[in-house]
Amino acid sequence: MPPKPLYYSKGSASLRYLHTVDENVCGYKACPKPKPGYLNVHLVPHTHDDVGWLKTVDQYYYGSRSMTQKAGVQYILDSVIQALLRDPSKRFIYVETAFFWKWWREQHDSVRHQVKRLVSSGKLEFAGGAWSMNDEAGTHYQSTIDQFTWGLRKLNDTFGECGRPRAGWQIDPFGHSREMASMFAQMGYDGLLFARLDYQDKETRLMSKTAEMIWQASANLGKASELFTSVLFNHYGPPPGFCFDVLCADEPIIDDKDSPDYNVDERVSAFIKHAELQSRYYSSNNIILTMGGDFTYQDAHMWYKNMDKIIRYVNANKSNGTKLNVFYSTPACYLKALNDQDLTWPVKNDDFFPYASDSHSYWTGYFTSRPTIKRFERLGNNFLQVCKQLHALASVGPEDWKDLNRMREAMGVMQHHDAITGTEKEHVAKDYARILSDGFSECLEAIEGAFKKIIPKSSVVKEELSEIPIKPCLKLNVSECQVSEVNNSFVIFVYNPLSYPTSHYVRLPVTSTSYSVKDPNGKEQITQLVPIPEPVRTAPGRMSDATNELIFRATDLPPLGFRAYYVTKLNKEQQKEHKREVLDEAYEIGHKKFSLKFDDVTGKIKSVVSQGHKMKVKQDFYYYKGFLGNNVVFENRSSGAYIFRPNGSEAVLASSSVKQKFIKGPLVDEVHQVFSDWISQVVRVYKGENHAELEWMVGPIPIEDNIGKEVITKFSSSIQNWGVFYTDSNGRELQWRKRNYRPTWNLSNAEPIAGNYYPVTTRILIRDKDAELAVIPDRAQGGSSIKDGEIELMVHRRLLHDDSFGVGEALNETAYGKGLIARGQHYIVAGAIKTFKNISLAAQERMLIQQKVLAPWIFLAPADDICFEQWRETYKMEYSGLKKSLPPNVQILTLEQWKGTALLLRIEHILEKTDDPDLSKPVTINLKDVFAPFSIKSVRETTLGANQWLSDSKRLKWRVESNDIHRDTYSHHSSSYYYDDDDLTITLNPMQIRTFIIEMKGKFYGIKSRN
Amino acid sequence: MPPKPLYYSKGSASLRYLHTVDENVCGYKACPKPKPGYLNVHLVPHTHDDVGWLKTVDQYYYGSRSMTQKAGVQYILDSVIQALLRDPSKRFIYVETAFFWKWWREQHDSVRHQVKRLVSSGKLEFAGGAWSMNDEAGTHYQSTIDQFTWGLRKLNDTFGECGRPRAGWQIDPFGHSREMASMFAQMGYDGLLFARLDYQDKETRLMSKTAEMIWQASANLGKASELFTSVLFNHYGPPPGFCFDVLCADEPIIDDKDSPDYNVDERVSAFIKHAELQSRYYSSNNIILTMGGDFTYQDAHMWYKNMDKIIRYVNANKSNGTKLNVFYSTPACYLKALNDQDLTWPVKNDDFFPYASDSHSYWTGYFTSRPTIKRFERLGNNFLQVCKQLHALASVGPEDWKDLNRMREAMGVMQHHDAITGTEKEHVAKDYARILSDGFSECLEAIEGAFKKIIPKSSVVKEELSEIPIKPCLKLNVSECQVSEVNNSFVIFVYNPLSYPTSHYVRLPVTSTSYSVKDPNGKEQITQLVPIPEPVRTAPGRMSDATNELIFRATDLPPLGFRAYYVTKLNKEQQKEHKREVLDEAYEIGHKKFSLKFDDVTGKIKSVVSQGHKMKVKQDFYYYKGFLGNNVVFENRSSGAYIFRPNGSEAVLASSSVKQKFIKGPLVDEVHQVFSDWISQVVRVYKGENHAELEWMVGPIPIEDNIGKEVITKFSSSIQNWGVFYTDSNGRELQWRKRNYRPTWNLSNAEPIAGNYYPVTTRILIRDKDAELAVIPDRAQGGSSIKDGEIELMVHRRLLHDDSFGVGEALNETAYGKGLIARGQHYIVAGAIKTFKNISLAAQERMLIQQKVLAPWIFLAPADDICFEQWRETYKMEYSGLKKSLPPNVQILTLEQWKGTALLLRIEHILEKTDDPDLSKPVTINLKDVFAPFSIKSVRETTLGANQWLSDSKRLKWRVESNDIHRDTYSHHSSSYYYDDDDLTITLNPMQIRTFIIEMKGKFYGIKSRN
Repeated sequence: MPPKPLYYSKGSASLRYLHTVDENVCGYKACPKPKPGYLNVHLVPHTHDDVGWLKTVDQYYYGSRSMTQKAGVQYILDSVIQALLRDPSKRFIYVETAFFWKWWREQHDSVRHQVKRLVSSGKLEFAGGAWSMNDEAGTHYQSTIDQFTWGLRKLNDTFGECGRPRAGWQIDPFGHSREMASMFAQMGYDGLLFARLDYQDKETRLMSKTAEMIWQASANLGKASELFTSVLFNHYGPPPGFCFDVLCADEPIIDDKDSPDYNVDERVSAFIKHAELQSRYYSSNNIILTMGGDFTYQDAHMWYKNMDKIIRYVNANKSNGTKLNVFYSTPACYLKALNDQDLTWPVKNDDFFPYASDSHSYWTGYFTSRPTIKRFERLGNNFLQVCKQLHALASVGPEDWKDLNRMREAMGVMQHHDAITGTEKEHVAKDYARILSDGFSECLEAIEGAFKKIIPKSSVVKEELSEIPIKPCLKLNVSECQVSEVNNSFVIFVYNPLSYPTSHYVRLPVTSTSYSVKDPNGKEQITQLVPIPEPVRTAPGRMSDATNELIFRATDLPPLGFRAYYVTKLNKEQQKEHKREVLDEAYEIGHKKFSLKFDDVTGKIKSVVSQGHKMKVKQDFYYYKGFLGNNVVFENRSSGAYIFRPNGSEAVLASSSVKQKFIKGPLVDEVHQVFSDWISQVVRVYKGENHAELEWMVGPIPIEDNIGKEVITKFSSSIQNWGVFYTDSNGRELQWRKRNYRPTWNLSNAEPIAGNYYPVTTRILIRDKDAELAVIPDRAQGGSSIKDGEIELMVHRRLLHDDSFGVGEALNETAYGKGLIARGQHYIVAGAIKTFKNISLAAQERMLIQQKVLAPWIFLAPADDICFEQWRETYKMEYSGLKKSLPPNVQILTLEQWKGTALLLRIEHILEKTDDPDLSKPVTINLKDVFAPFSIKSVRETTLGANQWLSDSKRLKWRVESNDIHRDTYSHHSSSYYYDDDDLTITLNPMQIRTFIIEMKGKFYGIKSRN
Repeated sequence: MPPKPLYYSKGSASLRYLHTVDENVCGYKACPKPKPGYLNVHLVPHTHDDVGWLKTVDQYYYGSRSMTQKAGVQYILDSVIQALLRDPSKRFIYVETAFFWKWWREQHDSVRHQVKRLVSSGKLEFAGGAWSMNDEAGTHYQSTIDQFTWGLRKLNDTFGECGRPRAGWQIDPFGHSREMASMFAQMGYDGLLFARLDYQDKETRLMSKTAEMIWQASANLGKASELFTSVLFNHYGPPPGFCFDVLCADEPIIDDKDSPDYNVDERVSAFIKHAELQSRYYSSNNIILTMGGDFTYQDAHMWYKNMDKIIRYVNANKSNGTKLNVFYSTPACYLKALNDQDLTWPVKNDDFFPYASDSHSYWTGYFTSRPTIKRFERLGNNFLQVCKQLHALASVGPEDWKDLNRMREAMGVMQHHDAITGTEKEHVAKDYARILSDGFSECLEAIEGAFKKIIPKSSVVKEELSEIPIKPCLKLNVSECQVSEVNNSFVIFVYNPLSYPTSHYVRLPVTSTSYSVKDPNGKEQITQLVPIPEPVRTAPGRMSDATNELIFRATDLPPLGFRAYYVTKLNKEQQKEHKREVLDEAYEIGHKKFSLKFDDVTGKIKSVVSQGHKMKVKQDFYYYKGFLGNNVVFENRSSGAYIFRPNGSEAVLASSSVKQKFIKGPLVDEVHQVFSDWISQVVRVYKGENHAELEWMVGPIPIEDNIGKEVITKFSSSIQNWGVFYTDSNGRELQWRKRNYRPTWNLSNAEPIAGNYYPVTTRILIRDKDAELAVIPDRAQGGSSIKDGEIELMVHRRLLHDDSFGVGEALNETAYGKGLIARGQHYIVAGAIKTFKNISLAAQERMLIQQKVLAPWIFLAPADDICFEQWRETYKMEYSGLKKSLPPNVQILTLEQWKGTALLLRIEHILEKTDDPDLSKPVTINLKDVFAPFSIKSVRETTLGANQWLSDSKRLKWRVESNDIHRDTYSHHSSSYYYDDDDLTITLNPMQIRTFIIEMKGKFYGIKSRN
């Protein structure tokens, strides 16, 4: 039986939440026809508009600050549209929907109509089409999917099917992940084009004509994840000498034969020469020339005027040699032309990391650059999901819709390959923080609205409640929270965005020494007070008198729901004992299932005992000294925002021993370590948890010696990993890595450290036949295993020189007049490979990651004037959006308000097929019984990007080389679709994500359509 | 009787050689209406497109070499036209017809129609409109008139009356001449706007609200030369912060209130502030803002998008203070708005030279910069007039029309304020030379055609003649001429472009020692051989074996005609004696009417005896050392291409004594002086001439001491001139100059030398009550009288530093790997003020100038195979285009083919009213009997630019301040127009030029109209 997408619509008209009608000549129908027997040259006019880099998003849009960079996106779009309107033979692609949308909003109706006509006729086509052109190293798949969804939705809302991009267009990101390719495939793209890959890889591929390939982008999803991939020849620029932009200095085509500067013959011949050269490295009789670059086409006419001449004179050229057929085209038309030739393509299974542009330029520094921005972004995703869920569940109404959008857009911007990457200028990084912070603020209003709609037990209390703020504490990274510090009583809502119940250790900074915490049943909770470490307490910018953190365990947090806890500061009479011991010498923390031992001389971690399996694991901080080079290609690169290049191969030990304090208590054991005046760490093991939490704090990195430093945490174990380690790809599938090795070419590595660094979004691990050690960071970082048994992650870097890739600033972050301090967490999972609680370590790791990525979020309401009993009587203290929990290997990846009365729902299987014997099995769930506040009226499955009905998706088919025998073994991915009119049962295979637009019954009726 | 222009049309339809129909809404009819009670702000979008400067004309047009300068005129015009077409509320002015025409030629008919519509509706308006925006210092009025005529004709041909510029627009030239203003007035312009004037003058004028005035631009022509003149406030750029060009870095108007960069309030307030500031210095309630600059509007949309916002938000601004009415406008509309206010304006009588931009930046170096280019340009005018005359007289036919055009256009280009000025880059100077040289080449073909049409005595010889080249010798500046050196016999045509007969000493380099020269009657001419001075003979690049120059006097050269001379190299048997003496000690040359005495110690000139009047006149070479500064404004400018700034006030004497040879002969006495290894001079007095000729040769200027040098020739006399001297204005009226003085403000002069330099186009003189000394250069030079009795002229300059006004190169000209050598002539007139041959010295000078500016031109035909008698039988050896000579104070300034069967004719009175008691009187001539080859069918008078019938010319009338009592005393200028149906008698008042389009009877019929 052929696979069928889920399509359920009982007793109602079919869903109309996607524009699918396409009466126009766009897409492949609009493509120019290549000529057989000719070398067909696709001129693709394009502009690459960074959503922030040297200038902020708005500065780029309006074209201000042009001393920094000559770039004004408003003018680009104005200019291109006018050029296309003037001459229908022209084409253009636009990529970044963040900019397009900002422009579109400002246009008059007449212009909008004209643009629609251009899109409907294929003159203006969208490539990529996400909110921004996202980074592929540090991004998390959830945010990537979100930002594509938002960008593609704007295009679909505005232009219908003609607005759907067919080609992935990742021309600038600094390396390419397999997961991104997989997502492109699942989003229905027909191919991907990019520019940046290792220079050796590129040379190898060009020489063997394998720069175009079928990327098998998932070890789990089979054909559904296969993506035709094309490596661009000349970066993403025009052939040398053929840049006709106002930003360029190439010669125009001068066709006045009377002019002493007449150059048509010479220019035509140079063009043909380039085309012949390029075509030598590709197997079809089509080549693509990327006629554009960064912020080009501000004066589109210059391009078109000269390209028109190229087309005219080259096509008319009668000289011997290759016959050229030059025409305006698009990436999609290029893909279609290749596909029409029905060639056989080679296969690629690994990814394109790390990216090296020359022998000393490994772009592995940006995996860590600006660690605090990277964390803020990750928190943003966590918060946005909470926001979306609460907003969807509570249906707070039209007045709050735009609030979600600002956060959606902020997160879309943050995915940009100069945002989350940390490769932007300092002032731009600050503007990103502003944008994200504004997103938080407006999202908060939606959340507060949701709470205030959900929690009243009767309508009469609604007004009272409107006086009570319900807010999160956004400065917990410096252990600061006004509500918990100032109020005598307050209520804590612990919201769980996971699809199954969880528990969570709540930590809040407090100023007093004794607190009562009651759960919704009035049950007094066990609490513990832990002193806030000195380096945190005295951190610059911290505005708090709290010296302790109050800890309790919030248990049984319902899926997509919350439990509320009532906290009261106890006066002297009421004071109860907060058990804890502070010891100078303990050298062991944890509990019988998981404990850490410390060296009694150095004070550092020396071993882990997990489920009885003891492993030698040492942990320490080191730093690399950043190389200072002259930035000559292939010679002498500096370590910088993009590039990691240590000065000498050995990292310097930050401190031979630590000062420490051991704190033990009923909930958590902690070791407060001070490595130096700029490195400290809290190592903790919570009761009942089978992992350790290392909360490091690094900075200000000293630079008095005029040497930049890149700080790593290094775990050294006895694991014999033979150079092999694993890193996750954007938070999903694990990628096999081997030191000084690349699967597809013979690596020559002149940078033994930097050339072995890989992006670690959520996990890095090493294993041997017996044991495994995994480190889970709370943000994207660069990591490696430089020696057997080791894992290292770079946590912070401060550099004094630019690496000459454009940012033009040293990565020397400061705050409060000093070097920036970064604080973050690593979660350590270690143990025997075999069985722990009957769940594999791999599955445990994945679930732990899930709990950290979608961590419970805490909201506080001051309650000085209302006692526990009153509160409990008046307000709900427990709530779940789900009728019942989903299995632990299933996650509701997306639940958000969609258009009209519909919701967007994504459900994913979070495990790979080899992760766990049981949990990796396909899971079947019935959507009918999932949601508490509503029941489903109809549901229809879409592609991953939610811009096309899955049943409409017909991707181009490509033939692969026959030696690829493994290709069809993963067939289960497509076997489980079925269609049954009254049955909403769906099956998820490992790593599968399924996307639905659902319409609800019940209280959602009557909400008007929104756009 | 009101003055009437000449309009004669006997028995034929009225002439249709000008497009005058104007059914459209252009010109003043299209102007926006200022609002009473508001400050009306005229936004004038414009681009200033140098016809060559840092790049060549073609490089600017096509936008190549953009590393040198980002500038592409083709894109500017494309872009502006599209912007105007998109929105009819926009306006633009274009100025340089050289570029406009190049662009127009490339446009499709559809575009041409669109542009015509824009011009017809006043959206696109021309200002200036000459071929280029000419320099006003070194240019000769004849070339200026020509280049206006050519530019205005293209506009009239293409756009009719709507294409007629109303406003003079000299925004960039470095100082402004009175003659230019006079020409603008005579060409029918309603006003002139410019930017550059002495900073002290500007400040004075702004403070006294006299930056707008009536310029009374002629001491002879009265009202006809009056011109409303407006000094722009902010150079020719937009208000600071409001440049919205792709070349600028000012902030765009950001009107998205959600953007953190929203700046409307701040920008509006800054704009209003600027407008208020500017209006404080002007007397009307209109101000003009020049919204543009050098090569701006390549991306016109950026400007208009932001100006639209300015207009919208400023006009909507409700805050207190000045009420602004901002609108798109043009310079003409600004003039009209001022005129409508009927205010009274102050009067200006002198000129705007020299221009100083700060206390140490006198722009007086460019008066001399690139002396060889300046000479080449002057020769170009001489040649073009010969070419036009012969072409018109011979009517060589349509096939040659374009040849004239190339030379017309080359000369138009050369007038540009970075061409003749020498302020262009070296490679551009070379390209100008190429352009001019190409003009010569093509013009030559026309001339050759004319000769070959004129000279055959029967039609049968035409074919023979086609084998014989008739060419000029263009390398006489290095005494090189192939025909005279190689051939045993050759014919010399001596063409006289003057309107009266003249004689001319012919000098040709020869290799033998004995020649026979026969006039048309076979009469043997007196000849003389003079050795070519050593420095000339050995000059780098000279390709000649000639060691002597053969001299004879060509007499009775007919007006607009020629006499031919047959020259034969004599073999030994035939050798006749060429009388000459070569003496080492003579110390006196000349003849009884004019002689020079030399100092027997130094060898230098010490006195002149003219008509018995003996004057002490010493002549010597000096040089100033160029200042090396840091180019900080008001502090420390370097001497450079623009700026003359000697290092210390005293000039260095080049040589204390000279080596010399005296050569005396029947035709000329010469002294060959060698001052140093880089300065030499020939001083000569021809028999019968009442002036001396000093042929200087300077260079390579030594720079081994790393000091730039500026070489002057200085004449020191006993004349008591009390600081007063006179320089000509563009070759016409004399201007009164006084050392360290300006007529309209209290000068503070920190540069005692440079601040007293003035442009000398054709004459500089000093006089006292008894005597006068005048020096006439053969090209434009800077000159002054720094001490009483002195005249100095700068002949050559070589500098090692840039003066930071943009050219970005030191003025360090080289040729053949060495510093450039310049060779040129000064003509010295001296004597008693009163009576010489009953002609005043002033009139003599003016006529001598005329003979040098429109010197006879020599063409040579090899005649080895044809003896004198054969030649004389076969070919005409005498020819005149005039039936009879015009009086010596009258010159046919222009005679050229016009459209269809018409000719363009300009006749001028070359004297000022005070020059001579007799010759300065009005002259009456009858056009009917003037021309030999045709008779006149109809004639109609036009304005000076020939783009408007004089009868249609209705210039705006302005009121001047009543204390200007002298204003109406010159009334004769307009009293002599008359109209009589059968009478072609016209009267010319002193300095009057009258312009006519004439249609001929006879052989010209049948020639088709050309465009």
